[in-house]
Amino acid sequence: MMPAAPWTCSVFRGVDVSARKTMKDASKKQPSFSSVAIAGPGLLGGSLALAVRARMPHVHVRLWGRRPEPLEYALSIGAAHAVSTRVEEVVQGADLVVLATPVGVMLDIVTAMLPALKPGAVVTDVGSVKGCVHQSVGAVLTRAGVAFIGSHPMAGSEKQGMEHASAELFQGATCILTNDEHVHEDVLLLLQRFWERAGCHCIRMQAAVHDSTVARISHIPHALSALCVHSALDGGDVELLGLVSAGGFRDTTRVSMGEPSMWAEILTENSPAVLERLDAALAQLGDVRKFLAVGDKKSLAEWLKKAGKSRAQALGL
Amino acid sequence: MMPAAPWTCSVFRGVDVSARKTMKDASKKQPSFSSVAIAGPGLLGGSLALAVRARMPHVHVRLWGRRPEPLEYALSIGAAHAVSTRVEEVVQGADLVVLATPVGVMLDIVTAMLPALKPGAVVTDVGSVKGCVHQSVGAVLTRAGVAFIGSHPMAGSEKQGMEHASAELFQGATCILTNDEHVHEDVLLLLQRFWERAGCHCIRMQAAVHDSTVARISHIPHALSALCVHSALDGGDVELLGLVSAGGFRDTTRVSMGEPSMWAEILTENSPAVLERLDAALAQLGDVRKFLAVGDKKSLAEWLKKAGKSRAQALGL
Repeated sequence: MMPAAPWTCSVFRGVDVSARKTMKDASKKQPSFSSVAIAGPGLLGGSLALAVRARMPHVHVRLWGRRPEPLEYALSIGAAHAVSTRVEEVVQGADLVVLATPVGVMLDIVTAMLPALKPGAVVTDVGSVKGCVHQSVGAVLTRAGVAFIGSHPMAGSEKQGMEHASAELFQGATCILTNDEHVHEDVLLLLQRFWERAGCHCIRMQAAVHDSTVARISHIPHALSALCVHSALDGGDVELLGLVSAGGFRDTTRVSMGEPSMWAEILTENSPAVLERLDAALAQLGDVRKFLAVGDKKSLAEWLKKAGKSRAQALGL
Repeated sequence: MMPAAPWTCSVFRGVDVSARKTMKDASKKQPSFSSVAIAGPGLLGGSLALAVRARMPHVHVRLWGRRPEPLEYALSIGAAHAVSTRVEEVVQGADLVVLATPVGVMLDIVTAMLPALKPGAVVTDVGSVKGCVHQSVGAVLTRAGVAFIGSHPMAGSEKQGMEHASAELFQGATCILTNDEHVHEDVLLLLQRFWERAGCHCIRMQAAVHDSTVARISHIPHALSALCVHSALDGGDVELLGLVSAGGFRDTTRVSMGEPSMWAEILTENSPAVLERLDAALAQLGDVRKFLAVGDKKSLAEWLKKAGKSRAQALGL
């Protein structure tokens, strides 16, 4: 057997015509989801519900949550056709179940819904870390004969909750799909098309590659953004510092306003990959300290220059 | 003698009515600058020239630079009435001289212009670090009987050079004034009004306080922004990382695109204050590493929460 490629990357939106054809062929064989159950009426779950209602009018949307208030609100704004605090009620008859809760509670929810799942139902999640989701939820569902594919729509906001949900949240966002359980390609394409209709473009990769990728591009920026706030403000005159602050401080620290307990969860769930990058950051910060302490302007300028070049390369600037 | 307050802070734009009155009184005794010489046709010098032309039509603007090309360009867009590559020509008869060159070359330029300065001329600069400017330029000018006040208009861009200059660059920016040479209040108020007319609001502080303040609010964000690029991209698949990057990476790393040699200069010139903050950053990053390594989610969440709260406090969110 050939060793698997470390990651496969395919953009399906207006780029890869052959992939589009495959999708059309697949749609002839298998209809698209006609009923979607979303577990978790937070920012992501709520926004997904709104996006489905707005962009897939034929799809029946059901929403589960622990507390009735966000569900009632979701009903009142037309985000769902049906809501319930009983997960087994919500998933009954659903073709697609989307777990939009914190990663730490997904296994309990899946265990509760499992007996009520329709045969052939597909389960996915929207967690920011994928390895641990596959190890827990993916393993349980696969053993029960249910197809599980991980999803990570890379969309969000500093604002939390159903009341900040928007049908446009996923517009233009990248959605990473992790199919570590090797669910059949036809099912994967169905899920891909679902995310594309919600506004995303999809990339596939293995869960481990996903976790190392988001540690780099999302989790480390978050940690360093908070570090920047602490380094700038701790022990200083916060009022004066705010008065003289400009766009640099504002931009560099923007994401530090994310919900702290949610981010502590994410960083901890992805700790092996984040620690590897934190160690790299510590080593480089030590180097910068040395350059400054000895007045090595040349090395400092080279380090800064390389940062600018890498960023320009990554962002296509 | 009473010890000096560690810093004095006065916002003059629409806040302190008594200060405005003082300024009006001062303007009766002493006219505002009628001729301004700007040394250095870069982004800041060029933008200041344009701002003076646009907002102070009675003021004669002269521009000095080492190379003729940016000067010719400045003339062609009406940024200056007169230009020259000879600094002694440009400062002749000027009421205000603004040093808008890198800090490292200011002393040479001041030495060259000193014999040609008009009696009573005021000299300021726009450097990002103030302690070293006062120690070199401030000391030389004061010994020669010339009034020197430091200025730091906190405006800029990732883009460099006269061709990116804009009359609006200073609009709404904070300008820190450092009067460590204790120039007379009337002269200080004249300079303040000059910056206000250019679009800034002014704050006064001692040079040492300035340097520690900007180390926190500007230099550390710059260093950590570059650190974020390196930690995210070094040794990774830059193309893939760019593809999945979202606003978090983009914002946290934006300022890393600043001109590397200019920033290496700034960080080095302010190294005592920057090193103090880098050591704080290193210690905190070490703490975060520990929290993650032992799975101390609670301490991590508290650290993140405190960052969000401090930032909100500083920015009045």
